[in-house]
Amino acid sequence: MSDTNDIRELTRLVRDFADRRDWAQFHDPKNLAMALASEVGELNALLRWVRNEAADEEVKRQPMREKIRSEIGDIGILLLELCSRAEIDLGQSVRSKLELNGARYPESVSRGRAERPATE
Amino acid sequence: MSDTNDIRELTRLVRDFADRRDWAQFHDPKNLAMALASEVGELNALLRWVRNEAADEEVKRQPMREKIRSEIGDIGILLLELCSRAEIDLGQSVRSKLELNGARYPESVSRGRAERPATE
Amino acid sequence: MSDTNDIRELTRLVRDFADRRDWAQFHDPKNLAMALASEVGELNALLRWVRNEAADEEVKRQPMREKIRSEIGDIGILLLELCSRAEIDLGQSVRSKLELNGARYPESVSRGRAERPATE
Amino acid sequence: MSDTNDIRELTRLVRDFADRRDWAQFHDPKNLAMALASEVGELNALLRWVRNEAADEEVKRQPMREKIRSEIGDIGILLLELCSRAEIDLGQSVRSKLELNGARYPESVSRGRAERPATE
Repeated sequence: MSDTNDIRELTRLVRDFADRRDWAQFHDPKNLAMALASEVGELNALLRWVRNEAADEEVKRQPMREKIRSEIGDIGILLLELCSRAEIDLGQSVRSKLELNGARYPESVSRGRAERPATE
Repeated sequence: MSDTNDIRELTRLVRDFADRRDWAQFHDPKNLAMALASEVGELNALLRWVRNEAADEEVKRQPMREKIRSEIGDIGILLLELCSRAEIDLGQSVRSKLELNGARYPESVSRGRAERPATE
Repeated sequence: MSDTNDIRELTRLVRDFADRRDWAQFHDPKNLAMALASEVGELNALLRWVRNEAADEEVKRQPMREKIRSEIGDIGILLLELCSRAEIDLGQSVRSKLELNGARYPESVSRGRAERPATE
Repeated sequence: MSDTNDIRELTRLVRDFADRRDWAQFHDPKNLAMALASEVGELNALLRWVRNEAADEEVKRQPMREKIRSEIGDIGILLLELCSRAEIDLGQSVRSKLELNGARYPESVSRGRAERPATE
């Protein structure tokens, strides 16, 4: 398998995988959204009893590291499938959202604050 | 902003965005997993009352299309942040998982079946 | 075990179960919210490839029925634990929300419409 | 509205609310599972940037307390609707699961341990 990090090439790999199994019938956007809820739930299962202060170290230690990587693979695959099916460009969506967030969270007022000021 | 679709470049954009706001203190892997549950929940909210047979058409129609794109942007950003924080390569995780799934779901037995055979 | 359907008695059973295992240290509201995301994810996993028109029949057929019941048990337990920990009355929360929703979704305008009118 | 804490009476209130709006058409088990993912996502949104050690205090302080109560109301309503639709007894499911968990997590080996021993 190629070692690409290009989103469009990865999308082709993912779509091709599903196509060869005739899975388009299952992969409508609604079902893929549910599948994402399921896989993100598995990621949350891994970290639910880990305390904040231990989380960074924990995810870098085996066997947790491999489990996290496996869930991230599942989430990535489903996200790429959803984008392919809905004809949405993932890279562009990320870049647009960063741009929008840049306006919503100006550095001057957002530094060190997780939430937007209450006036929003 | 660049128009890259390279996962590593997108990851740098995302990390830089958070760094300039001093958000590393909030973005440990546990909190990012919860944030993913929240954003995937918003995606599910958009599609919860849409029936399967209407889902493909619905996600391509405005204003739904823009809402879906916005949630996909949020999910993509958080997934890239999590990968950056946990030092996990998203592209490689997707490719490894596809390879593993290729063995778990051989084309011959998986064609047209959403779940693995019961023997697994 | 008693056969009660009273929320307060069930809450006592759930809390007692955790207390006898010294689990209060894990069950802060943040961790319980993550655990809920995980269990609701498992529920979504069961139904992700089931189409809307087949869902009612599917959840009444074994072995699906037992799996759904098991996930509902998990979700119920965690919800009761969260209410106990956060000192929130589940029955009252449900009744208050129904009352609020009664005002937000008047029967006359909400009949047969899943979402509130766009003016809201 | 009555001040009952009996699950069966609450279920009747919830079902009656939906019936008077002709919402049965939206509330099949698949859609309700997605709606649960959405509402549990909102609960996770409230607590995603709150650290473990601050979570207990935070959920008891306004305005967070009221927001948590509101999400718990939504989750409770959807869980009761799902049980009603799938003809599953919530109280019994909770009690059965506690009994099963009693065997899976014996007090002697589970005390102070969030996860089951690795032999499982």
